[in-house]
Amino acid sequence: MNHEYRSDCPVNLAVEIFGDKWSLLIVRDMIFDDKSTYKEFLDSQEKIATNILSSRLKMLEEAGIIQKQSDPVRKTKTKSVYVLTPMGIDLIPLFVEIMLWSGQHRKEHVSQDSIAQDIIEKAHRNKQALITELRQKAAQRAAA
Amino acid sequence: MNHEYRSDCPVNLAVEIFGDKWSLLIVRDMIFDDKSTYKEFLDSQEKIATNILSSRLKMLEEAGIIQKQSDPVRKTKTKSVYVLTPMGIDLIPLFVEIMLWSGQHRKEHVSQDSIAQDIIEKAHRNKQALITELRQKAAQRAAA
Repeated sequence: MNHEYRSDCPVNLAVEIFGDKWSLLIVRDMIFDDKSTYKEFLDSQEKIATNILSSRLKMLEEAGIIQKQSDPVRKTKTKSVYVLTPMGIDLIPLFVEIMLWSGQHRKEHVSQDSIAQDIIEKAHRNKQALITELRQKAAQRAAA
Repeated sequence: MNHEYRSDCPVNLAVEIFGDKWSLLIVRDMIFDDKSTYKEFLDSQEKIATNILSSRLKMLEEAGIIQKQSDPVRKTKTKSVYVLTPMGIDLIPLFVEIMLWSGQHRKEHVSQDSIAQDIIEKAHRNKQALITELRQKAAQRAAA
């Protein structure tokens, strides 16, 4: 990728790649919700528009955060799945911090469903264990 | 703030507030670069536009991440400074993770200036110590 960055500040170099709401939600889908297909991302609660989804997937792929693979179940070329690359997997600690922050400061709005609450609870109890678990799951999906 | 969220997922509840490049860069300015005035944010390397800066400051203030105070030096009412609230200070661990990620995956682009390199180096050596140091600095500024 040939890219002109606005600055060489490490924070800027990161947020120029994934610092937008929709990219963050796509990576969330992959980390926490085991999603991997275009249709699964499209069906997420926040209702991403098709053109935004396509452009963000392309951008994340070009940046090396996600990678397209042929569907491990159907093995067809037309159907592909997206998995996190090692660079994408290294975003997991950042997302766990987002979870913790919301669990603390957006508590009254956070879904009461057991999955969201479970993850926040796990992050509070043993952040490192949760990170390791999520890393392993993501690596397994990428190796499938 | 009366706000309709797109979903009650904890990640979404966070990124709807600060999940855009410019908000993240303003908070970065406050955490790492000791910036607090409109002019200082405007002068950052990434060259934020005045209308975007105004709207993001307003949004971050309404969300409770930052807070306006009268200038502690000049004590005039016309001149104000922005400081992080406790909710904003709790974003520090997330920013330290961004630093670490860039230090690892955007290494070839990261500024060689000693400040950026120092922070990445500190984060690698002792993440918790860096977080504590940044938290203390931010709290001192807010109490000034």
